[in-house]
Amino acid sequence: MRAFTEERDWGQFHDPKSLILALVGEVGELAELFQWLPADAAADRAREGHLHERAGEELADVLIYLVRLADILDIDLGTASLRKLRSSSSRFPTAQFHGQAPDKT
Amino acid sequence: MRAFTEERDWGQFHDPKSLILALVGEVGELAELFQWLPADAAADRAREGHLHERAGEELADVLIYLVRLADILDIDLGTASLRKLRSSSSRFPTAQFHGQAPDKT
Amino acid sequence: MRAFTEERDWGQFHDPKSLILALVGEVGELAELFQWLPADAAADRAREGHLHERAGEELADVLIYLVRLADILDIDLGTASLRKLRSSSSRFPTAQFHGQAPDKT
Amino acid sequence: MRAFTEERDWGQFHDPKSLILALVGEVGELAELFQWLPADAAADRAREGHLHERAGEELADVLIYLVRLADILDIDLGTASLRKLRSSSSRFPTAQFHGQAPDKT
Repeated sequence: MRAFTEERDWGQFHDPKSLILALVGEVGELAELFQWLPADAAADRAREGHLHERAGEELADVLIYLVRLADILDIDLGTASLRKLRSSSSRFPTAQFHGQAPDKT
Repeated sequence: MRAFTEERDWGQFHDPKSLILALVGEVGELAELFQWLPADAAADRAREGHLHERAGEELADVLIYLVRLADILDIDLGTASLRKLRSSSSRFPTAQFHGQAPDKT
Repeated sequence: MRAFTEERDWGQFHDPKSLILALVGEVGELAELFQWLPADAAADRAREGHLHERAGEELADVLIYLVRLADILDIDLGTASLRKLRSSSSRFPTAQFHGQAPDKT
Repeated sequence: MRAFTEERDWGQFHDPKSLILALVGEVGELAELFQWLPADAAADRAREGHLHERAGEELADVLIYLVRLADILDIDLGTASLRKLRSSSSRFPTAQFHGQAPDKT
């Protein structure tokens, strides 16, 4: 992604706010693919065929901007993610949260 | 992420539409970190200190739900991303798009 | 919203990209309220009690930033919305789309 | 919007999670319009011409889904928004927050 950007001299557009807006655009395209599907049939329908391919493209677009954002902010995504998972493991003990989604209200 | 989910029996909550909403929630938290920062100072302020750490946490949260979504949809994120980058390289020839962002209107 | 902004001299922060990021933040909070609810029970649970109140607050936050964005861009939201509904009525003839959601893939 | 929906028998698709995903899709399209514009020129460019029209369409799309969501959840958007503005006025006293954006980190 860094090479792709430099070859086009697009680094000038890649400030954090612009990249987050681009990420939002891709998340929006991902949401559109699934918005009207029945909740309990969505996974099956997206595991093959045209929707599988389209979902792959949109997930990829989200990842690409995420990685670019991490790059310009000197963030090691792998390390940050493992740290976050460890922290979530402590916040949500298996005994207390078994089969129980956190309340977000 | 798969192990984390199974230990808590949270797979029942992880249909695609729910996971996309969770991803949207994390993208929203990322957006909030940057929304009022001056565009040209945002990267510098986020490259160290408290904002650097907070940005890392939110990027990680986005990645975690993205990976989980790819997992339940049998999507290989790495392959999909390389394919997307190759496709973008063709769509945006360096000569034609040098220093020129694609028009999204 | 205009008065609220001027009293605090916050107009300096309200360029379009910053306001869209703020809108994204509020949409993210709205998404979090619903993300783990069963799709077919979500409306009933949100029609009263604590979730009803929380949903009202987040919908309001989205509207507030939407109205502010329209204000700084000299957009008449009411006129634009009626025009959009008329245009959608033409694009989706009732006979052809009865009980049939548009395909977004 | 209610009439538009009923004429097409689309109420079956309008559970809260689906409508929030549709809202996210429209916010994504709005974000795309602005993502690569220079922050300090974005408002001027969007106050007339093609971008003004496109921004109006996307703001309208966001409002339309927002209103529909409020409708199915029995939320009075006007009342909720005035209540939220009053609450924000208390939380952010003009003296303390004059020229000072709230810290969201």
